[in-house]
Amino acid sequence: MSKTKKELALGEPVCFEYVRRVQFADTDMAGIVHFSAYYRYMEEAEHAFFRSLGETVHARQGSGGVGWPRLHASCDFFSPIRFEDEVRVGVAIHEIRSKTVRFHHHFWLAGEGGEELVATGSVVTVCVSLGGAGGRMESIAIPAPLRDKLEAARRRAVAPGSRKA
Amino acid sequence: MSKTKKELALGEPVCFEYVRRVQFADTDMAGIVHFSAYYRYMEEAEHAFFRSLGETVHARQGSGGVGWPRLHASCDFFSPIRFEDEVRVGVAIHEIRSKTVRFHHHFWLAGEGGEELVATGSVVTVCVSLGGAGGRMESIAIPAPLRDKLEAARRRAVAPGSRKA
Amino acid sequence: MSKTKKELALGEPVCFEYVRRVQFADTDMAGIVHFSAYYRYMEEAEHAFFRSLGETVHARQGSGGVGWPRLHASCDFFSPIRFEDEVRVGVAIHEIRSKTVRFHHHFWLAGEGGEELVATGSVVTVCVSLGGAGGRMESIAIPAPLRDKLEAARRRAVAPGSRKA
Amino acid sequence: MSKTKKELALGEPVCFEYVRRVQFADTDMAGIVHFSAYYRYMEEAEHAFFRSLGETVHARQGSGGVGWPRLHASCDFFSPIRFEDEVRVGVAIHEIRSKTVRFHHHFWLAGEGGEELVATGSVVTVCVSLGGAGGRMESIAIPAPLRDKLEAARRRAVAPGSRKA
Repeated sequence: MSKTKKELALGEPVCFEYVRRVQFADTDMAGIVHFSAYYRYMEEAEHAFFRSLGETVHARQGSGGVGWPRLHASCDFFSPIRFEDEVRVGVAIHEIRSKTVRFHHHFWLAGEGGEELVATGSVVTVCVSLGGAGGRMESIAIPAPLRDKLEAARRRAVAPGSRKA
Repeated sequence: MSKTKKELALGEPVCFEYVRRVQFADTDMAGIVHFSAYYRYMEEAEHAFFRSLGETVHARQGSGGVGWPRLHASCDFFSPIRFEDEVRVGVAIHEIRSKTVRFHHHFWLAGEGGEELVATGSVVTVCVSLGGAGGRMESIAIPAPLRDKLEAARRRAVAPGSRKA
Repeated sequence: MSKTKKELALGEPVCFEYVRRVQFADTDMAGIVHFSAYYRYMEEAEHAFFRSLGETVHARQGSGGVGWPRLHASCDFFSPIRFEDEVRVGVAIHEIRSKTVRFHHHFWLAGEGGEELVATGSVVTVCVSLGGAGGRMESIAIPAPLRDKLEAARRRAVAPGSRKA
Repeated sequence: MSKTKKELALGEPVCFEYVRRVQFADTDMAGIVHFSAYYRYMEEAEHAFFRSLGETVHARQGSGGVGWPRLHASCDFFSPIRFEDEVRVGVAIHEIRSKTVRFHHHFWLAGEGGEELVATGSVVTVCVSLGGAGGRMESIAIPAPLRDKLEAARRRAVAPGSRKA
């Protein structure tokens, strides 16, 4: 029997964890975090992960360098999150290809009966050169030093439970 | 041979079209629209579609009524969109179930060689009662009058090309 | 006796009007539009005004050109605005100096007893050259053709009441 | 000779400091943080300050309780801030009245020659009861226990310099 997205998310080893306090401006009139905010949280987690590797996802203006636009992003929402909640986003590297990386992001919330998986997302991001004429972006192979760091981080990934201890 | 997401999107009949001017605050330092904004655009299109049916997605405070939180949202990005672009979002009702609706949203941009499909997204939204104790949301069957309007709109859907004329 | 901000706003001639539908993502858990959204609305109104003059506030990437960062922005909030409200933003040019423009933005909402002034804001924006080394921005004199258009628009400004007719 | 806003900001004692990493989604195509984000940062700082007092600015849904909509918010921008900058927001209580509080927020950025004041803002917020019919908000006196905490925090305020040590 095939596993659900939730079951798959529960078992996936993560490379990095990012803790995010829900802010008032992230909520909507239904009293919960607006769904578009989850995509910003996933990006924040990914960028914090890059910083933890000594890398940045975007070179400062005027430097040429690379950027990481998205090819795909999805999210499944299991339970709402609310103002002042502290959400823990586990970052998993699901796949590294020559020009793209697929991240999985698992959202955890501390509740009465322990931690609960409240959402899970998937983002495919492509490495591009920003130096093209007229600001054109062209996809390129992920630079080797960064690829090595990502591969190493993936090998070090641990089950979400073990990281909490 | 199976069709790509892009091919499927190109052929899907749409119920409604929403035109959105890209605003400066929607862009990021890469010079393009931030990917999280596409989810807001899809929601705006969906809500404009509801208004076109004489419905609203959220009752005013204090009225009880229903809301429509999301269970899933995904987007595939084919080409970037930029400041001051006018994007046309075609809204397709992909599936109506007892408590949920799956919308597909197709993003079109006018370019040199005609219109180009620049992104396509999918949103599953669930009908909930907002009157629960402590603000709890409980999924409910879509009210019959609204379901009838959605079904009728789906029957009236036309190919994106024919709508443009 | 000195006039209040509200009284001053009521009497100020406006060059342009921008109508903005309040979107769901603009609301917060208090059920009203989040105050940070008003600053985006003011910017949208200003940019629509620029487009009405055949100008844009930001050259496309790679072109050199000018930009308009803000030196100051303030807003006074008289009554809340809510989901699906249609807000009318009147744009007044309060002052044109060599390098800066001060806009006033008056927010109107149709209510039971006619239109109500629900907020008023003030934004000072400075003309900069974007071509500096390392992305540095340097303030410059407003280009003469644009200045002429702004001056002409200010001379054509009319009382908000007369524009509605 | 009267002091400038910058000089006044430099000397004002602060009750609380909030450190905020600039996120990618906060930037715009000019390569800097969009001005509307500063208002969100000020609010985040204010809410973190409330949490440090054991208070929250917004009761959870269904509880009645109080909220804190804004009457006024302004910001003066001295130097841009950019992706991945760590901004330090100093929160000063400028005035406590029966129903309102005026906060001043001073934005600091670490640079080559020490810390630089890059922006300063002012927010007036009013205490309201959320329990009104139809979601109506009515201004009320600040509850005494909260007022006492705010007064005490103001008395403990220190010069920004001394807090850094």
